[in-house]
Amino acid sequence: MAEAAPTPDSSATISAAHDATVRGFASDNYAGVHPAVLAALSIANGGHQVAYGEDAYTERLAERIRALFGERTETYPVFNGTGANVVGLQALTDRWGAVICAATAHINVDEGGAPERIGHTKLHQVDAPDGKLTPALIDQQAYGFDDEHRAMPQVVSLTQSTELGTLYTPAEIRAIADHAHSLGMSVHMDGSRIANATAALGVPVREFTTDAGVDVLSFGGTKTGAMGAEAVLILNPDRVRHLKHIRKLSMQLASKMRFISAQLEALLEGDRWLELADHANAMAQRLATGVEELPGVELLHPVQANGVFARLDQEVSRRLMKRFRFYFWDEAAGDVRWMCSWDTTEADIDAFLAALTDELGGVGA
Amino acid sequence: MAEAAPTPDSSATISAAHDATVRGFASDNYAGVHPAVLAALSIANGGHQVAYGEDAYTERLAERIRALFGERTETYPVFNGTGANVVGLQALTDRWGAVICAATAHINVDEGGAPERIGHTKLHQVDAPDGKLTPALIDQQAYGFDDEHRAMPQVVSLTQSTELGTLYTPAEIRAIADHAHSLGMSVHMDGSRIANATAALGVPVREFTTDAGVDVLSFGGTKTGAMGAEAVLILNPDRVRHLKHIRKLSMQLASKMRFISAQLEALLEGDRWLELADHANAMAQRLATGVEELPGVELLHPVQANGVFARLDQEVSRRLMKRFRFYFWDEAAGDVRWMCSWDTTEADIDAFLAALTDELGGVGA
Amino acid sequence: MAEAAPTPDSSATISAAHDATVRGFASDNYAGVHPAVLAALSIANGGHQVAYGEDAYTERLAERIRALFGERTETYPVFNGTGANVVGLQALTDRWGAVICAATAHINVDEGGAPERIGHTKLHQVDAPDGKLTPALIDQQAYGFDDEHRAMPQVVSLTQSTELGTLYTPAEIRAIADHAHSLGMSVHMDGSRIANATAALGVPVREFTTDAGVDVLSFGGTKTGAMGAEAVLILNPDRVRHLKHIRKLSMQLASKMRFISAQLEALLEGDRWLELADHANAMAQRLATGVEELPGVELLHPVQANGVFARLDQEVSRRLMKRFRFYFWDEAAGDVRWMCSWDTTEADIDAFLAALTDELGGVGA
Amino acid sequence: MAEAAPTPDSSATISAAHDATVRGFASDNYAGVHPAVLAALSIANGGHQVAYGEDAYTERLAERIRALFGERTETYPVFNGTGANVVGLQALTDRWGAVICAATAHINVDEGGAPERIGHTKLHQVDAPDGKLTPALIDQQAYGFDDEHRAMPQVVSLTQSTELGTLYTPAEIRAIADHAHSLGMSVHMDGSRIANATAALGVPVREFTTDAGVDVLSFGGTKTGAMGAEAVLILNPDRVRHLKHIRKLSMQLASKMRFISAQLEALLEGDRWLELADHANAMAQRLATGVEELPGVELLHPVQANGVFARLDQEVSRRLMKRFRFYFWDEAAGDVRWMCSWDTTEADIDAFLAALTDELGGVGA
Repeated sequence: MAEAAPTPDSSATISAAHDATVRGFASDNYAGVHPAVLAALSIANGGHQVAYGEDAYTERLAERIRALFGERTETYPVFNGTGANVVGLQALTDRWGAVICAATAHINVDEGGAPERIGHTKLHQVDAPDGKLTPALIDQQAYGFDDEHRAMPQVVSLTQSTELGTLYTPAEIRAIADHAHSLGMSVHMDGSRIANATAALGVPVREFTTDAGVDVLSFGGTKTGAMGAEAVLILNPDRVRHLKHIRKLSMQLASKMRFISAQLEALLEGDRWLELADHANAMAQRLATGVEELPGVELLHPVQANGVFARLDQEVSRRLMKRFRFYFWDEAAGDVRWMCSWDTTEADIDAFLAALTDELGGVGA
Repeated sequence: MAEAAPTPDSSATISAAHDATVRGFASDNYAGVHPAVLAALSIANGGHQVAYGEDAYTERLAERIRALFGERTETYPVFNGTGANVVGLQALTDRWGAVICAATAHINVDEGGAPERIGHTKLHQVDAPDGKLTPALIDQQAYGFDDEHRAMPQVVSLTQSTELGTLYTPAEIRAIADHAHSLGMSVHMDGSRIANATAALGVPVREFTTDAGVDVLSFGGTKTGAMGAEAVLILNPDRVRHLKHIRKLSMQLASKMRFISAQLEALLEGDRWLELADHANAMAQRLATGVEELPGVELLHPVQANGVFARLDQEVSRRLMKRFRFYFWDEAAGDVRWMCSWDTTEADIDAFLAALTDELGGVGA
Repeated sequence: MAEAAPTPDSSATISAAHDATVRGFASDNYAGVHPAVLAALSIANGGHQVAYGEDAYTERLAERIRALFGERTETYPVFNGTGANVVGLQALTDRWGAVICAATAHINVDEGGAPERIGHTKLHQVDAPDGKLTPALIDQQAYGFDDEHRAMPQVVSLTQSTELGTLYTPAEIRAIADHAHSLGMSVHMDGSRIANATAALGVPVREFTTDAGVDVLSFGGTKTGAMGAEAVLILNPDRVRHLKHIRKLSMQLASKMRFISAQLEALLEGDRWLELADHANAMAQRLATGVEELPGVELLHPVQANGVFARLDQEVSRRLMKRFRFYFWDEAAGDVRWMCSWDTTEADIDAFLAALTDELGGVGA
Repeated sequence: MAEAAPTPDSSATISAAHDATVRGFASDNYAGVHPAVLAALSIANGGHQVAYGEDAYTERLAERIRALFGERTETYPVFNGTGANVVGLQALTDRWGAVICAATAHINVDEGGAPERIGHTKLHQVDAPDGKLTPALIDQQAYGFDDEHRAMPQVVSLTQSTELGTLYTPAEIRAIADHAHSLGMSVHMDGSRIANATAALGVPVREFTTDAGVDVLSFGGTKTGAMGAEAVLILNPDRVRHLKHIRKLSMQLASKMRFISAQLEALLEGDRWLELADHANAMAQRLATGVEELPGVELLHPVQANGVFARLDQEVSRRLMKRFRFYFWDEAAGDVRWMCSWDTTEADIDAFLAALTDELGGVGA
């Protein structure tokens, strides 16, 4: 039987199982973790800290968040983006509430029905060009508030940057929020890529969140360079009660929460989140610029964050996929999505463009 | 705008916010992460890996798990214990199913109602001495299978080691599983502390899981020394369909899953999980042995894993809590829980016993 | 093609499929409908009335209910008792709320898990002698209100008359309600047999409901002599919002609601509900009195409403069941339930007692 | 205390509260009950019958249903259309399943989110002209069956007759069902107005249901002339398990079920359901024919069942609404819905057309 706590130096470690030099354009989730995040985990280690969020790192994170988003902001770290969204939407809806969102919203198409099944809400969807809602589009679903036959619209959910790589301006968000509030609804923002949006807009993040009328924000860290760290931010505490209970019953309460909070702290330290996102955005611009010059490839949406959506011959894409990992967005239409991440390099872009040029040359050949 | 991926060496890192030398007895979740786990995260980093589980580390983990639990075992890493349990219970229940468990089960008392609210099941609870079910106790709730007025018992869920620090023997589990199966029910095991159980029993883990008839297991890593890593193990694939869909809709699908799998790999490497658990168990024994000699403290359950449950004067406990962190289990009764973890030292135990002796001296003084 | 609305006189009608002279003691749900209820359906027929509750009969019912329960009472007719209970419990709980109830409560044992699955709540159960809660029993579960690991107790649910045929006095209910309210909880009453309770207590119904602090009541009509008619009554509107939405999403909103409301009106007219319930209670007393004189039969609970619970040799019961329909309550213990209904006659009781006496004579013979 | 069961002749009855000669065009739910249905309720009354469906009337109903829909058909009476749909959809979906439906489907727009909240499913909606799905339209949502990020399409739900008063031909339904089955999906039919469809198509009902490949049917009685009676019909038992449990936990299990079954029996007796529906359809044709001749009114969809959808000046509609009750379908567009029911008379149609002509004369006058 052991007689003292096992010592670190006796620890063998598992070997690498992958080639750490290979990168693709499939998703910003395919990237690894920024070294500063790993370092922060190490620093937060050792000794005992109260579990479930009453630790020093979560407290310090909350301070940083308040500095960014305003003094009333409440911070609830969670595991992943689906969790952040479903916790946040539950916080803003009653048992009879529903959520207005773009048909392309992640909550509508990529969360396995979790908002409905776990959040017990309904999504009223709107076809939204470039993935962006407007007050007029919202009005397509914002009615029947007193009609019990209709799931009551209580929340407008928008994604910033959007699932199609586009951005809302602060003024656009304010107009949506004012409209939603005037109708008695709240505003939720899926900020899985809020770092990319903030970097691209070049304004303080609170200008298009707290100050624009967003009530609850899913603050994303994972895609920006964390290992797995998101947070539900209550920007307007007047509209939310008992989020800590909602987080727990939604199975999004981390026991050793210090290690989630430390990741987010590492990102927020010294504007690292913005530097990383700015880099990813720049790589997307570089890619878009290169693509624009290529015949046979059409850009589908303005490239405003870290994603590039293009339409090209499916066979070209299939050949290219053997060289760089990425996916069809709409295979029948020939649409693809190319995502850049914090670790994408200029050389990656240039190699990809060269390969694309190469494969395009083969069309019809 | 950045032109290359940010380099590691430019990264400042956040400072420590806590005293890494302080440990208590509140929970094995208060402990940090074993150094080998941190090292594994670093090794798994870099480059791109397919998200959501198709990475090399998850594949390698699955191999290790199969070696331990049997060739048919399927491995589904998840974020936390509540998630593992609720995913696993959903996998074993239909829309009309219910779960028989001990009244003291974590799924019944400590998960904020997630099994009911998220899993849409019902828990048929049984008062179980020392937190352990038996076939006879199960029979108190195992009836009415064809009666639609009764939520249909479809699963027996047991916890190993139990929430009260006790253990099932392999034979006891086999008897329960045989009984459950003979009634058409499945067997779920909450193995949040299965490392402690395996170390204490001194038998191969599959002897009291796969081979004893357990169908689905929540395999716990977090309390054993990981940062946040659990896995749902399907030991009997004949009873489960589409667990990957259930995990996703339950919001327990990690995007950068390689970092969860790597944690579990680091624990399993070279029997590290058993060494760590064995140490924690030994510390609990040391504590129990010390306590047994003290007048005014009564042990409430056999100390078979890493938890010690005792009854003593509430005032003594309150004074002691100012020196070492721990909680009342039942304040009115004077019951407390003292948990040992992988990083508890003999010195910790001895200091705690000295303090306890000290405070006990003050009773009625 | 038809050219005018089909005329009534051309209507053949289906024939009877059962012997309308046979009655048993299985359940008050086995009885049919009081003639005045049928007559009311006919009177409410003809012409068009606004669907979903904006009809003249629902309005008139609401008036009668206000006269009985107080001017602030709101009336929501629903289809059945499970629906009434689950709608009412949802109205009093947040997403994170739970309900304290007796282990024997109908909501816990006879609703297929609907409170959990449809209401997304958790039931904190208490072993309650004679099926009755007390403030002390409630305290066994009324704790941890701020602890997110525990499903937050928000409601105390009691049944009047209870599932075991017993009654709460007005003072007992007031004590429970005061206690629940002092802890921030609401009070729900399952009044599936409230007519029996009101008749037995001999006091105005509001004395042990509205005036005693009950917040939401499931008002039962079906077991009292209706065809299928219950209502959720909001006795304290300060605690409930948007019940009409909850009723709809719970699939308990009748389109042709006038025909549910008319049933309840017919029961309430001229104290018919109390006459019918008083008769059923009297039949239970007659049965209990007869049983008390028989050796080999033990009454299990005070007979205070329309149900008689007894323990006797299982073989005797099995033989008797061939002559009169009734069920085991706990077959292993030999416990049975005999229910009297509005249409039970003195002759029914006497014949049953004779048969019971007859069969008891055969024990061991 | 009463000494015998209250006698019918002592029963006063409540008076009428409405003018039984007034009819409108708001909904077929505004109509009352056909006299034969009332008569059937009376015949089914008296004596005791086993509750919850084991009664003679439910058994006899099941026989009639089998004669109509095929020998394997299972009949589960429920309270209302929402209940029938949500029970049926649950029966055909796993925890991870989703339902493909027209955006205009009742399950999507008029059930308060019950399919999502109670059925825990997700609706993948398709914009469908005239409310009708086709294999090509279904394909817009029938993909990603193995992708856990997408709620798995498991059911195609269609409405017959549709919410827009149109019909599927038997061949159209067969094509949809063949397509759905070939993709591994089941077929659900919302038959709230299946009587209208059957009467209009002039074919045996099983030709476009069981024989066309429909797996589960919501068989509607309420809109056809019942008081409140629908049934979930399992046409293909191979695809459904434990519907009785699903019905109960969905709070759709009637205690005195004989009175629901008797209503449906009365409708099915001697083709009464088809006569009533045929009449309603004929009235809609009469109305449509009259409307077609009026300038300023445009018919929006083919009038194939008992509903007429038209577009006209909103002010005209508002004035007309003061004389006959009906509603806007889309107020901004000027769209209205006029429903005919079993009790609509030719005189009703003619009076309405006269009033409409009258009000149209006032446009711009």
